[in-house]
Order: sequence, then C-alpha cells, then structure tokens
Amino acid sequence: MEGDFEELNARSVRNIINKGGTFLKSARSMEFKTIEGRKKAYEQLTKNNIDALVVIGGDGTFTGGVYFSQEFDLPIVGIPATIDNDISGTDFTLGYDTALNTVVDAIDKIRDTASSHNRLFFIEVMGRDAGDIALNSGIGAGAEEILIPEEEEGVERMLESLRKSKMSGKLSSIIVVAEGEKSGKNIFQLAEYVEEHLEGYDIRVSVLGHIQRGGRPSCFDRVLASKLGVGAVEALLDGDSKVMIGLSHQKVVRVPLTVAINGEAKYDKELRRVADITSV
Amino acid sequence: MEGDFEELNARSVRNIINKGGTFLKSARSMEFKTIEGRKKAYEQLTKNNIDALVVIGGDGTFTGGVYFSQEFDLPIVGIPATIDNDISGTDFTLGYDTALNTVVDAIDKIRDTASSHNRLFFIEVMGRDAGDIALNSGIGAGAEEILIPEEEEGVERMLESLRKSKMSGKLSSIIVVAEGEKSGKNIFQLAEYVEEHLEGYDIRVSVLGHIQRGGRPSCFDRVLASKLGVGAVEALLDGDSKVMIGLSHQKVVRVPLTVAINGEAKYDKELRRVADITSV
Amino acid sequence: MEGDFEELNARSVRNIINKGGTFLKSARSMEFKTIEGRKKAYEQLTKNNIDALVVIGGDGTFTGGVYFSQEFDLPIVGIPATIDNDISGTDFTLGYDTALNTVVDAIDKIRDTASSHNRLFFIEVMGRDAGDIALNSGIGAGAEEILIPEEEEGVERMLESLRKSKMSGKLSSIIVVAEGEKSGKNIFQLAEYVEEHLEGYDIRVSVLGHIQRGGRPSCFDRVLASKLGVGAVEALLDGDSKVMIGLSHQKVVRVPLTVAINGEAKYDKELRRVADITSV
Amino acid sequence: MEGDFEELNARSVRNIINKGGTFLKSARSMEFKTIEGRKKAYEQLTKNNIDALVVIGGDGTFTGGVYFSQEFDLPIVGIPATIDNDISGTDFTLGYDTALNTVVDAIDKIRDTASSHNRLFFIEVMGRDAGDIALNSGIGAGAEEILIPEEEEGVERMLESLRKSKMSGKLSSIIVVAEGEKSGKNIFQLAEYVEEHLEGYDIRVSVLGHIQRGGRPSCFDRVLASKLGVGAVEALLDGDSKVMIGLSHQKVVRVPLTVAINGEAKYDKELRRVADITSV
Repeated sequence: MEGDFEELNARSVRNIINKGGTFLKSARSMEFKTIEGRKKAYEQLTKNNIDALVVIGGDGTFTGGVYFSQEFDLPIVGIPATIDNDISGTDFTLGYDTALNTVVDAIDKIRDTASSHNRLFFIEVMGRDAGDIALNSGIGAGAEEILIPEEEEGVERMLESLRKSKMSGKLSSIIVVAEGEKSGKNIFQLAEYVEEHLEGYDIRVSVLGHIQRGGRPSCFDRVLASKLGVGAVEALLDGDSKVMIGLSHQKVVRVPLTVAINGEAKYDKELRRVADITSV
Repeated sequence: MEGDFEELNARSVRNIINKGGTFLKSARSMEFKTIEGRKKAYEQLTKNNIDALVVIGGDGTFTGGVYFSQEFDLPIVGIPATIDNDISGTDFTLGYDTALNTVVDAIDKIRDTASSHNRLFFIEVMGRDAGDIALNSGIGAGAEEILIPEEEEGVERMLESLRKSKMSGKLSSIIVVAEGEKSGKNIFQLAEYVEEHLEGYDIRVSVLGHIQRGGRPSCFDRVLASKLGVGAVEALLDGDSKVMIGLSHQKVVRVPLTVAINGEAKYDKELRRVADITSV
Repeated sequence: MEGDFEELNARSVRNIINKGGTFLKSARSMEFKTIEGRKKAYEQLTKNNIDALVVIGGDGTFTGGVYFSQEFDLPIVGIPATIDNDISGTDFTLGYDTALNTVVDAIDKIRDTASSHNRLFFIEVMGRDAGDIALNSGIGAGAEEILIPEEEEGVERMLESLRKSKMSGKLSSIIVVAEGEKSGKNIFQLAEYVEEHLEGYDIRVSVLGHIQRGGRPSCFDRVLASKLGVGAVEALLDGDSKVMIGLSHQKVVRVPLTVAINGEAKYDKELRRVADITSV
Repeated sequence: MEGDFEELNARSVRNIINKGGTFLKSARSMEFKTIEGRKKAYEQLTKNNIDALVVIGGDGTFTGGVYFSQEFDLPIVGIPATIDNDISGTDFTLGYDTALNTVVDAIDKIRDTASSHNRLFFIEVMGRDAGDIALNSGIGAGAEEILIPEEEEGVERMLESLRKSKMSGKLSSIIVVAEGEKSGKNIFQLAEYVEEHLEGYDIRVSVLGHIQRGGRPSCFDRVLASKLGVGAVEALLDGDSKVMIGLSHQKVVRVPLTVAINGEAKYDKELRRVADITSV
C-alpha cells in the first residue's frame, strides 16, 4: 500500500524452505478494511504492473480478498495458511502439521515432569474456533482428556474421567485444552475448578503460546506449500480467480473463496471417538 | 512360536506413544515360511486362547498373514507399517511421515555444508520399490534432482539439469536418490559417473541409512496409529478377517489383504511434476 | 520412607539415558523435614541393608542430606541436578544444558513470529535465584535485553535500550526475563509497563514454563551424569561422605555439602558483558 | 583473493545465530599455500583498508595464518572452529557441542532399530585425529564399545567385550567408531571381522557422515561463539596478534597460534575410564 515493492524470482526463495515465519513480513492492515484503503492498494498494484494477486492466510485474509476482487478487476487466488486448520474446502492448511509436531514435542517434555512427580497438567494449545490442534495433539501425546470449541459438555466429562482414573490409582495426567474451549473459564480457572472438585491432585498449568507459530516446517508442510504454490500459479494461468487452492483427498483443488470463508466447520467426530477410546 | 507370551493391557502401552522402534521385538522368522512353522505358531496361539491376530508390517508380513489365514481358522487383520509407504489400499503407512521428517532434517543439515562450500551432494534415502520418501523429502529439502525406482531415465535427466545449473553459476546442489533407483549404479558409482561427465563439481556422498527407521514418531504417525489400531479391533469385533486397515481419503477403510499385497503401485506423477517445477 | 524399595542393577538403567524426567519418581516429602520423618527413613534404610545414600537434586535435597548425615551414621553423597545451575562448587548441574537448548529452541520459534510481524516479545524462563538460563539463552537466542535476579537496574536499562532500537527503526525484539527477576513486576506487568512508556510496539508475552524441565537430555548432560555417577560411587568407596560430586574446570571434584548449599552465587559478570556487546 | 569484498555490520549477522554452516562461504585455497598466493591476498587486504584479520577454522586455517603473519605486517587472530575438538589451548572448539548432539540424536534413532531387532550396529562418527566426538557421543548414547584414534588395542578389547555380553544374553549393541580409528580396517571391514569371529550377531553399519557438519547450533556453541568473537576483537584492540582465542576453565584466553597448532593432543583418559565403567 505504501508502494514498497520488491521483485522476487526463483532464486529469492532458494533458502527459505526450511524456515518458519514469513520473510514477506505481511501483516494486518486496518486501512485495507476501508474502501479507500483497498483503492489505494489497487492503484499501487496497477502502477507496478501487477496483473494478479496470490493472498496467503486464513479467514481474514480471504475475506479481504473477496472484497478486493469484487471491487477491482484483478485476478486473485488464495492459499490457506493458518495453524488452526479452520478453513473449509481444504483438508489441510499450511503450518498446521508443523504446529501439531511442535505441540506434541512440548507435551512430551511436560509429560516427563508429570509422570516423574505424579502431576496433573492443563496445557493450552491454539484453536479459537477449531479443535483440530487439540484433538490431534491430544491423541498424539496420550492426553487423558481434550477440551475443544466444538463441544459444550467438556468440563463435566473431564471431571468424571479424572474421578475414575484417580480411583484406579492414576495421579499423573495431561489435559489438552483448545484456547476456544466453551466452558467460559480460562485455563487457570479451569485448573482451580478441578482443584476445588477433586482432592489429591498436584495441578499445573502450561500455556504453549507463540512457540506454536514458528519453527522449521515439517516435510508435510513443505510439500503442501509446493503443491499449493504450483496450483495457485496454474489457476491464474488458466484464467481462474476468486478461488482458494486447497488439498482434498490428496489432490489439489480450486474452491471459491466464498465457500472457503462461509463453509461449515469440518469437526471430525470420528477422531473424537478415537480419542475417547485410546485415552482410557 | 516358542510359547513366549505376555499379556498386555491399556496400561502396558502407556509410555510408548513417543518412542520409535517396536517394544514387541517382532522380527522375521524363517521357520514361519514353512507350513510346519505356521502350524507350530497356530498351535501356540490356540493353546494360549488367542482368538484373533493383528499383524503389523509390510508386504512380507501380510503375505505371511494371507498364508496363515488360508491354512488356519483364525481371524487375522493387518496394519500397514513400513517407512517406504509401498502398500496398496492405504494412502499412508505407519512410520512413513516420521521418516520423511528425519530425512528432511538430515538433508537440511547437509545443505548447510553444501551451500557453505559449493558442493554437490548425493544423498541416498530408503525406498527399494517406491520413490515416495525420495520424492517428498526431495521436494521438502529443495533438492535439485530426485532419482526414484518408478523411472528409468533419471540419470540422464539429472546430468542435463546439473549442466544447466552449472552454466547459470550454481555449484551447490542436493541430489536425492532412492535406494531402489533404476540406473544399475550404486550411489558411489553415480557420483563417479557425474564426476566423469561434469567438471568443476566438488562431489560428496551421504547414505542416510538406519537413522530413517527410528526416532520419536511425528504427530501424524501417532494419530494414524491410534486410528488404525481402533480400526483393527473394530474389524475383528465385526467378524471381519483377512483385511488390512488403511487410511483412504482420511477415512479408515478395510481392504482385503490380497489387494494390499498385489495392488498396483501408487506412483504420484503429479508430485513428480511439482518436483520438476519447484526445483528449477 | 514407606518401605517401597526396588533393587536396580546395570540393566535397570539400560534404556533411560535418552529420557527426560526421573524414573525414580522421587519427590518432596514434608515428613522428611521433621526429625521423626528422617528417623523413619533411616530405619527403613537400615532394615533394607542400605549402607550409603546418593541424593540427586538441588539446594533442598542437599539441605535434607546435611541434616540426615548429621543425625545418622550413614555415608551420604550428593549429585547436583537442577536446571537453574544455582549450586556452588560445581560449574554445571545436571539438566541445565538440556534446559538451555530447549529454551533456545523455543525462542527460535517465537522469533520467527517476532521478525515476521515486527513484534516485541517478553519471554519468561526459569531461574528464581540465578540468571544462568536467562543470560546464556538470551545470548544464544540473540535477545535484545536480559533481566536476571542478580541485577536491580534491569528494567530501566531495558527501556533505554528499546528506545534506542526504536529510533534506529528496529521494532522486533526479544526480551528474556528470568522468573526471579528483581523489578517486583511479573512478566505481564513488565509488558504493560513497557507498553505505557513506549509507543508503537506490538507486545506479546510467553511463559515457557514446564517444557524447560523435560525432554531428551543433551549429550553434555548425559556425559556429565555419567561422570558424576561414577564420581559418587567412587567417593563412597573411598569412605567419603557429606560431599557433593561436582565438575570444576572439567574435572570431577568433591565438595562439602555445606559449601554447596551456603556458597556464594557464581554470577558470571563476564557473560553479562558479552551479552551487552553482542545484543547491540 | 579475487577482491570480492563485502562490508558487514552488526545488522548483517542479525539472523544467522540459529543457522549451521557459514554464510561467509570461506573455503580452502590451494593458491594461498604458495607465497605468491599469500602476497596476492595481502595486497587485496591493504587495497581494501583491512587492518586486521580474524581467521576461523582449525589446524589448516591456523597454519595458513601463522605463515601469513610471519610474512606480512597485519595483525591476525584465530578462532577455533572444528567439530573434531582437536585444537590445543582451548577446551572447546566451535561446532563440537552441536556435532555431539547431532551424533547422539542419530544414534538414539538407530538404537530404536537395534533394540527392536537385536542387532549389532557399527556407527562411524567424525574424528580423524581426536576421539572426542566418539568418546563423548559413545557415553552419551550408551554405546557398548568406542574405538578412537588415540588407542591401538581397540578391536581386540571390543571383541572380548562383545563375547562377554553375548554370553550374558545381550544381542543388541552399539559400537561407536571414530573415522581415524587405528586398526587399519575401515568400518565395513571391522564389521566383517567381527562377523567372522563372533557368531549369532545380525550386524549393520551406519556412516553418519556429513549430517555432523551442519544443523542449528546448540546453546553452548552460540554462547561460545559470542565469547570468542568478543575476545578476538578485544585482542586486536589490545594490539595482540598471532594468537588464538580459546576457552580454558570457562575463561576466554589468548594462546599463541603456534601453540594451538603444535600442542599435544588432549586425550581425556578419565573420560575413557568413565566410558569403560558405564558401558558394562
């Protein structure tokens, strides 16, 4: 928007495939939320002979892209990149698999302490609207219970489950909590709540936070990024616009950006069932 | 076969989810390849009141399972576990995603040296019959060329590609080679062949070998193992037998063991195309 | 103290060298803090023919050991194991090097976000009485400022340093804060304080917490544990008691437990000087 | 030597602290080994107003530095950087601790396979003249035997040790072999030799190779680099020359470059003793 352009070629990305974060330093823009701001952006793009736009991000990015593509005559394609995996029309978003491995690695470390000293750990992971990170990392780290935004009854079920394990003599446990969990309590309040209702537990809280957003990408994410990147350019070459490039059943697909934004959540109930069975 | 049984329950696997290898210590048995050996195994199973068998492995394991299930009246279910991902009827095998991350991590380390000193590295990865590891890790690690068992013309293409990069001034490169690559040359001979045909390269060889078979499992593999494990028990409860539990389009499926063994290879030509585009 | 003994031999520890935590499950005992509790412990030891005690831990563990060795006639040797590195008489404590690598790895991940989006991160690391983790990981992760328990004036210096970098156009930074830092503010209050005094920063807080206490030990810690373990047994064979086995100038040494507890802090001012120079 | 200079400032190294390899791309020069080559280098330096030289490397680098400093009037300071830790006058060289962690991580992975399938693994690690990597990683990874350049009798001792373990029923083992080991056999020949002399082993070989030379640096190496870097600049400011900056007893020291090159090896016999005790 400020006219700060830099031309990149194949060599420019030569050494970034193993790096986290984004060297583009793209960030939210309040100005872009206004029609004046978007007009300013469009003028910069035309002035610099940009004939198509690839936007990389999640819900907010795509919503901006939809507005922009309705107001101006510029082809626009989206690539889903958010660690929460909360975009419709694609099985996976960029960064999600890497975040899962970071979370599981962190919980493995915490579990060393939990099992050494018979402690109950509440671990908050990312996921405001989707429990994908919590559910997968919870199964992957052998959590006793998992609280996710898609369910209301999590807290009472957890209490019941802890009561049972306590009776069977098990005093060390991991509870994975998505930040968007629906109890209305934050994770420290959740820990207190359990402390009040269950005696004998040595309870600790850990908020994993921003370590989930960085780190060397997993092989899966690197290959996914390569597939989606090729897919985005080819969509533009085909004259497509207003679509997101996604992965569905291992194939690259093109999905209208409006579907990506408005689509139903893809809560995987089968995965919840697996979690319930394996956490026994 | 020696009657060395040990009863396991849910607690027995409590602390193995973050470990590589197998604590079952199962291994190949020459004796089991004979009808007498299999009969001995069957007798041990009945003597110990085992009423179903879950076999975990690849082609060899499943072939043994098919024989066994044809000869004796015991339900048998297979779980695909091989880092090569070379089993039909399932999108992924257990251990494959972990191996990919190990390989990419190793190549990242080697690339530090390659780019520091302008070297050309030949890196051998696993994959006797399938190029999945080579192709995915090659894309993931930004390899210049990838030689896989599914293609014949790899070596000449690689030579051509190296000639071009050399002319453009690029002297550091990574070539990923699947061990089952079809040139008839081993990796040291490949390196020599390139040395003879192209001047100016400082060539090194690295055989990743057995580090690919161990290590903390990735989150993907842990969740996959949980899904397939639940799927195997439920197949048996449903009265199913002679099936492999696989993952297809993110759903757990049951595939006849004979299909798993005899199926066509699932060489992903689209992935090869992506590799060719991104390695430019 | 409850007579729950288990005999271990060389084989018992065969597969724990690459694991975090302690499989001994040793923990604090309130009862042991009383003379009656210690008497009970002593009786259990003699009843089980234990003729010497090796205690592994930090200040609290060694203090208990000193009391015990003064009251009862049982040789006792200490091994320093605390991630804070806050024990006198040894250059390193067990777990410290592993924790440093975990912290640096976590900050590397956070830095991906910080530099992608021009953010200022406050990161709390362990260290109630000693700034060793903060100082070393701060240098190792390229932190802009480091707040440690050994210094009073940290906050104002940090403000000054941030002011300068802001004027030079730098908006992304990492501030590493030891939990025992002396400002009287917790890390969230520190972040608010900076927000009030400096405009234009997008500030985030991350508390690394319990991930610092677990994880696969580094090679340094594994070798250190082997040295100290051998040193402890040999001290007992030599008839020594009431000593801690430490590492000083790369040599295994025996230090009176009372010195280990009461010794002066070993705040490394030279390291602070290096931090100041390299963070410019 | 070609006049290809680039000015760097504090910002230039801002994002390299967590990277392996060298972005300087410095490499061996045959030309520099001649007096003409060194003269050419000196002329380039003076033409570009370079008033001091910091050379980073090992034996070869320092030898070149000594020649250069004797022939021309330019202050020169060395920083020891070699993963082999084979430089006199410093307790540690840059890259060594990182390499140790990489090796231990690799052997941990291999051990998963070894213990799963009762295999004997020969693992070759770096170390042409010094056994530091082999000895430390061998202890750290729980190896059964360690072969190093500083000892002649390794092979027979290893055979004896394997015979004993086999009799006690142990069939899985790790043997760590430094590449400079003194038997005159390469690692594949060593494996064959053991196969001929001991029945019943399923023997495999793994050459770790170039993965040891790269990878994210450990916290120890990052702090060491910061200390030595500051030390080098301050030595030059003090008017010192022809010295290596080392770390001795945790203090930064200045050692004549000639001592660094010609010094006695620092083979740590105490560490070998610890290895013998803990590998039982």
